[in-house]
Amino acid sequence: MDKTLARIASIIGPENLLRSEEDMAPFCLDWRKRYHGRPLAVACPGSTDEAARLVSFCHEKDIPVVPQGGNTGLVGGATPDSSGTELIVSLRRMNRLRQIDTANNTMIVEAGMTLADAQICAERVNRLFPLSLASEGTCQIGGALSTNAGGLCVLRYGTMRELTLGLEVVLAHGRVFCGLSGLRKDTSGFDVKQLFMGAEGTLGLITAASLKLFSRPAEIVTLFIGLNSPEEVIECLTKIRTSFSAYLSTFEMIGKNCLDLVDLHIPHARRPFVAPWTVLVELTHQGEISRFQEEVEDWFMTEIGHEVVIAQSTQDRKDLWLLRESISEAQAKDGISIKHDIGVPTSAIPQFLADAEKRLRHEFPECRIIVFGHVGDGNLHYNISWTRPGNIDLFEDEYRVNQIVYDLVYLYGGTLAAEHGIGQLKMDWLATYKDSVALSIMKSIKQALDPKNLMNPHKILR
Amino acid sequence: MDKTLARIASIIGPENLLRSEEDMAPFCLDWRKRYHGRPLAVACPGSTDEAARLVSFCHEKDIPVVPQGGNTGLVGGATPDSSGTELIVSLRRMNRLRQIDTANNTMIVEAGMTLADAQICAERVNRLFPLSLASEGTCQIGGALSTNAGGLCVLRYGTMRELTLGLEVVLAHGRVFCGLSGLRKDTSGFDVKQLFMGAEGTLGLITAASLKLFSRPAEIVTLFIGLNSPEEVIECLTKIRTSFSAYLSTFEMIGKNCLDLVDLHIPHARRPFVAPWTVLVELTHQGEISRFQEEVEDWFMTEIGHEVVIAQSTQDRKDLWLLRESISEAQAKDGISIKHDIGVPTSAIPQFLADAEKRLRHEFPECRIIVFGHVGDGNLHYNISWTRPGNIDLFEDEYRVNQIVYDLVYLYGGTLAAEHGIGQLKMDWLATYKDSVALSIMKSIKQALDPKNLMNPHKILR
Repeated sequence: MDKTLARIASIIGPENLLRSEEDMAPFCLDWRKRYHGRPLAVACPGSTDEAARLVSFCHEKDIPVVPQGGNTGLVGGATPDSSGTELIVSLRRMNRLRQIDTANNTMIVEAGMTLADAQICAERVNRLFPLSLASEGTCQIGGALSTNAGGLCVLRYGTMRELTLGLEVVLAHGRVFCGLSGLRKDTSGFDVKQLFMGAEGTLGLITAASLKLFSRPAEIVTLFIGLNSPEEVIECLTKIRTSFSAYLSTFEMIGKNCLDLVDLHIPHARRPFVAPWTVLVELTHQGEISRFQEEVEDWFMTEIGHEVVIAQSTQDRKDLWLLRESISEAQAKDGISIKHDIGVPTSAIPQFLADAEKRLRHEFPECRIIVFGHVGDGNLHYNISWTRPGNIDLFEDEYRVNQIVYDLVYLYGGTLAAEHGIGQLKMDWLATYKDSVALSIMKSIKQALDPKNLMNPHKILR
Repeated sequence: MDKTLARIASIIGPENLLRSEEDMAPFCLDWRKRYHGRPLAVACPGSTDEAARLVSFCHEKDIPVVPQGGNTGLVGGATPDSSGTELIVSLRRMNRLRQIDTANNTMIVEAGMTLADAQICAERVNRLFPLSLASEGTCQIGGALSTNAGGLCVLRYGTMRELTLGLEVVLAHGRVFCGLSGLRKDTSGFDVKQLFMGAEGTLGLITAASLKLFSRPAEIVTLFIGLNSPEEVIECLTKIRTSFSAYLSTFEMIGKNCLDLVDLHIPHARRPFVAPWTVLVELTHQGEISRFQEEVEDWFMTEIGHEVVIAQSTQDRKDLWLLRESISEAQAKDGISIKHDIGVPTSAIPQFLADAEKRLRHEFPECRIIVFGHVGDGNLHYNISWTRPGNIDLFEDEYRVNQIVYDLVYLYGGTLAAEHGIGQLKMDWLATYKDSVALSIMKSIKQALDPKNLMNPHKILR
């Protein structure tokens, strides 16, 4: 084994191969502390060439490779098993901006760059890279690609997949797919890059990406609106879309329970009103339309006959966002919860919420349901923070709660993984709920691209 | 063979199996009349179930299947070979709207529906399906998906791939992938639907699609702008993007040669001015912003210091579009041409045009170059209408002209197929220019999903 590690060290430089328990510790435990792995070592290549030689060597020696980005994943997708045989490959040294082109509105970044740094690269040339999510300071572009990350602005700009024009990927055998295209239209054969996005490292190691840039918004209008029911939330969304669809960048729905927890646990949060449901809306625009804020304000005051608070300053905006962004922290302070990252068609949200609550209450009469999410994309974070009051053995009920929730999600044409991926956490559920033909296509592709099952094995597919 | 055809007739109904030369003739010749095939027969299934049983039977009997939509393709992708063994499968009977959901902004249509009918379905519920291209009255959704069609509004709304949320596909063995999702976010495993878009029927037969809908624009501002050089064209695009990016839906560049031909051959066309380069720009917006047209007009008159004509009426708009849309007809009336559907990064367009003209003139001093296209997406239609004045044996020079053009396209990070696909026409060129690892991934996928090579064989890949 020492010979193996020596060879790896010779490829990437000995200082870039981590082997001590202490050095490896941060890579071995997942963000939610549900998975703990024991790797062979942690390898940090510094270039695509090093990454390719490393993966090629692993292929030759049958060493499984577990790609890891910022290790902020929520489904255990980047944590190795406990065998001590899997090599974690971290691209944190590959964090360079390779190219930025303002006339083509694209940039090429390496996979180890953090999302926040990618946003900064764009800002420096007066452009916007719009992907935005809670862990952006830590998560890396490679991980965002591998989970097809979503977040707060999908409604306007799309998920990571839609923001990506090209990829560079080291394949299981160590050859490099050079697809760093800056083209918005290219139909020269199958679009192979699509395979690697959302594949959580199971089909190859993404080393760089060509990303879309956008004009920066000149003005942002942030609104906080109180509504009485999920039906009213969807009506409000439809109305805003009819009148302001090109400007709508965020439409987040927040259940009363969430803001009750924020009130309780987050000292600086200031809740402007109490309503059964609240939506946080942002409209942004570029450039030359005068009176944008006034026109938006007039329209909302006339058309949305409920409580509406409109941010009048940057501080106002921060205060409103703090309420939304503190939900996860407030929940964590309140105790553990069974979390779901589900998607259903937007139109089905009210009925789904009613049915799910009814079925859960039937079996767990006093369960507490915490709902918030990116309703404009049909994506809900649907969490159960207790099944019985004060229940500390919550996870004993997890299987049954999941079953109730996912049964309904699929009844309404939804998904059990909207933006966090499958990883280890949802592998069995995927096998249960996913279209069987889709699963068999996935298995064929895995077999075709990674016949030795060395790329992040035992993730997504068993 | 009669037994085979009898069995096919029993699956789809004898009246839906075309066998006479006369009935089959329209299916045997491609749009540009470059490919003529001789099929076994033309089969028109009426449902997904019939299509699945048909393909399953073909799989059992080793009968190659050539899916055909509206037969408006430009690369011979839907024309069978001359062996008399390939079965054309036309989905023209499968042209129903299955579902439309205004709160989710989605619709499910069958693959045999024409693009124009899909647009109408959306209009009926006050929504927009934005894909728009010259053959929209004839081309079908299945064909638009299979070529990842682009057209006039990609800049704003994306190509067919980006407009598609889900697919239903009959696979080579006859099983059906049921993926008619209405979700904007779903990362539950590999996104297998992506494989079938742009695959020109080589991986399966698309039978239905779930498509995104948008709010209809309330106002359209159409402008015709004269500029002196490609550099000025790109500068103009960048300026408009900075100030109006959310509104910009079309940015078409037209070389002087194109409008000279339109002047010559299209009687009703009225050209407002003569300039070396012209751009046709459309800005659209939804809803509630007052004075949109005035603000746009003021800005263009101040910022774009050249000839600017702004449509003041629907008739004005039609007149301006007639100039753009008549280019292909004017070219056809003028004689044959060597056509290219290329893409290069927008920023590289000026340099590409200069270099390509220089190299072509070096070998063909008096060649005539006709350039127009969707510059906002980097997509150019780059046509050579003669290599030597009056040359009637133009296609003798085709190979060399293609070589000069494609060499430069790839030098600038471009593609030889932006929106028309590969089909038969560009198969050899693809093998020459495409990244070899990408080609090998394509071959693995083809082998994995269609091991008997029965789905549209000898297209895209040899």
